[in-house]
Amino acid sequence: MASQVNPPRGMRDFLPADKANRERVLGTIRSVYTQHGFDEIETPVMEESSRLHAGLGGDNEKLAFGVLKRALTVDDLQAASTPLDLADLGLRFDLTVPLARFYASHQAELPTVFRAIQIAPVWRAERPQKGRYRQFVQCDIDIIGEKGAIAEIELITATTATLAALGIDGCSIRINDRRLLSSMLAAFGFPAGEHASVLITVDKLDKLGNDGVINELRDRAYPAAPIAALEAFFNRPQTMEFLPFGEAAIRKALPEGVDETAVLELASLATSVDEATRASLVFDPFLVRGMGYYTGTIFEVAHPSLGYSLGGGGRYDGMIGRFLGGDVPAVGFSLGFERIVDLVSPAAVGGLDATALLYEDDVPAALLVSLKSELIASGVRVRLERKPRNIKPLLAQLAESGFARVATVRADSTVSTLEFRELG
Amino acid sequence: MASQVNPPRGMRDFLPADKANRERVLGTIRSVYTQHGFDEIETPVMEESSRLHAGLGGDNEKLAFGVLKRALTVDDLQAASTPLDLADLGLRFDLTVPLARFYASHQAELPTVFRAIQIAPVWRAERPQKGRYRQFVQCDIDIIGEKGAIAEIELITATTATLAALGIDGCSIRINDRRLLSSMLAAFGFPAGEHASVLITVDKLDKLGNDGVINELRDRAYPAAPIAALEAFFNRPQTMEFLPFGEAAIRKALPEGVDETAVLELASLATSVDEATRASLVFDPFLVRGMGYYTGTIFEVAHPSLGYSLGGGGRYDGMIGRFLGGDVPAVGFSLGFERIVDLVSPAAVGGLDATALLYEDDVPAALLVSLKSELIASGVRVRLERKPRNIKPLLAQLAESGFARVATVRADSTVSTLEFRELG
Repeated sequence: MASQVNPPRGMRDFLPADKANRERVLGTIRSVYTQHGFDEIETPVMEESSRLHAGLGGDNEKLAFGVLKRALTVDDLQAASTPLDLADLGLRFDLTVPLARFYASHQAELPTVFRAIQIAPVWRAERPQKGRYRQFVQCDIDIIGEKGAIAEIELITATTATLAALGIDGCSIRINDRRLLSSMLAAFGFPAGEHASVLITVDKLDKLGNDGVINELRDRAYPAAPIAALEAFFNRPQTMEFLPFGEAAIRKALPEGVDETAVLELASLATSVDEATRASLVFDPFLVRGMGYYTGTIFEVAHPSLGYSLGGGGRYDGMIGRFLGGDVPAVGFSLGFERIVDLVSPAAVGGLDATALLYEDDVPAALLVSLKSELIASGVRVRLERKPRNIKPLLAQLAESGFARVATVRADSTVSTLEFRELG
Repeated sequence: MASQVNPPRGMRDFLPADKANRERVLGTIRSVYTQHGFDEIETPVMEESSRLHAGLGGDNEKLAFGVLKRALTVDDLQAASTPLDLADLGLRFDLTVPLARFYASHQAELPTVFRAIQIAPVWRAERPQKGRYRQFVQCDIDIIGEKGAIAEIELITATTATLAALGIDGCSIRINDRRLLSSMLAAFGFPAGEHASVLITVDKLDKLGNDGVINELRDRAYPAAPIAALEAFFNRPQTMEFLPFGEAAIRKALPEGVDETAVLELASLATSVDEATRASLVFDPFLVRGMGYYTGTIFEVAHPSLGYSLGGGGRYDGMIGRFLGGDVPAVGFSLGFERIVDLVSPAAVGGLDATALLYEDDVPAALLVSLKSELIASGVRVRLERKPRNIKPLLAQLAESGFARVATVRADSTVSTLEFRELG
């Protein structure tokens, strides 16, 4: 019986040790971001269905959980021509659509340059598979209202500081600019109208390799000449000369004729980050990032031991203003909390200052609670445990849960004795 | 335009100052409960619809938000005979149903006596009104697997310690026992089958007064004799003699013939709490608590300045085992976080250690970020602010956001000067 009772498909319960570890990691992330001048906000888990399906979420919109309208009648069900007709709300699939809505609701109450922290769950009805969940936590920081590269630099600096505070070493940040991608495709001869679609294939470069990308583009029947130009670029002779990330390195990695402004801005960004922090920036001319709303810089955190990114983001100047009816500059960096927490080694719940009070059945409740209160007042975490016949399994479990000491309570009329012993 | 963009009806955004205050209060609650030996767990926000509608949630079941099945076709919509046919999941309306499901899923991994903390949002599609929200946070502690009154005592002690740590003074805890209520109704002559229904009216005693309750019972056409007995009891001559909460006081407040075990257990509980803590316990023979699942002790926290309770709970021995197919003893105490947070005075975000760096447009980004990093390394919270032409509104806003100092950054080739000035 019991084994059949589970949380909903693709969603997880967190037992005490996991929950404590998650809260500890969240606390570190929150505290570093706050120190870096960001302010945490919170929005409801639901948004109006029409906002979630306004085209800002890309493929994720299809994965949104819809919330049924209240007080629907059978007639309403009969009259619906699509399930969306029955859902006025939905669970957010990311934190960016809610941020755009939040900003539209509260712009007048926020600073001109607003640095937001959002640490919260999102929901996607994905096919459950290892490491993919239908409820998971994202940690987003966004800077709204700043056009200059100082915004990108602050985001990258705060993110690398957070990873360092969590003891996650050796990460590098791959960086590119949507304008470079676009002008590169133009230089190869792809018409502007096809860029978004070609980028879907280019985005698979890590998985397919150069030849795979060329083959898929051929299969998808793009014109031959631009594909040949891309292939020639892939196969160009390269010297092994090492160039630090800067203007020369960017030019060397790209074909002739790419967006000059974007080259200079990215070079200047690289120099500033390099001077200001020890973040390891890597230029990746084929980094795409899936979301269609990016307009400038894009970036991703790569960890040396993992085949996937820990997070990413970019500049999306067109989107925050969407619900306001105007453009508002914005850059964001999102960390995938579930991936981060797996990399951080867990700490014992409650630490060293936890004591379990083992009591016999005949000890009066009032006495137990007094003893417990006294120990708590001295700063100790206390758990009461009725003494079982066989004490060994209990002691092992207590040690595992971070209890450093047990005290046996015996009561002889009004006199109580406490015998302490160390665990672990 | 902007003024029309709002969060969904009955739900709220939290701006930085509110969010910081909420997190601070949650941190205190979490830390006191942990010290008292409770362990935090987390469950997904959604549960299977069939579990949410299994009769454990009373009237709240009707308020559950349903989540649409994925990949529904128009045929599915046509074939549905009720909206619930289209919802396989729903958002939890309390934390007790999820706890029962969690316990059934994980019993083997949990201690014999399991003390759970749950601090999490719940959702109810209530008619929005002042002070009522459709998404709100509950703070629940529950002890599962302990039959003895020590469980009630630990819950009451931990809850009063939490209120004290938050600086919420003067609360008292009203307490009663479902068995006393039931045996009192029996003593008046109400048949057992009508008790649950009669209690719905008795529960309105605070609002209706003695006469109102009697009138409503008459309107609802209960037999005249038990109503007359209740009325006579309401109007019995009472001496003003003060009795401390104990056996004598309980007997005095009840008619003859009530449940003897319950009287003695409640008296012993009162004595223990009184000896162990400074919690102010008050016996309220007409305290009902709405939920049908309570089987023993019930309690509510009352604040002197408020017309409503800050939280409550009780023993519900039949419920946790529901999904396991057996009885498991359980007691819980839930605090209404939204009411608590309104009573706690807010603290400044970031406190005294926050500095804003005001910069002119010509200061290089790399320099700014270096200065910021240096200050952060010294333990300060830092925010960059582009210097506006009129600096006064910005300084006021910074002071309000808890920034204690501003430093103006000027750059003259590679030399930078920082001029600090105190705010506030």
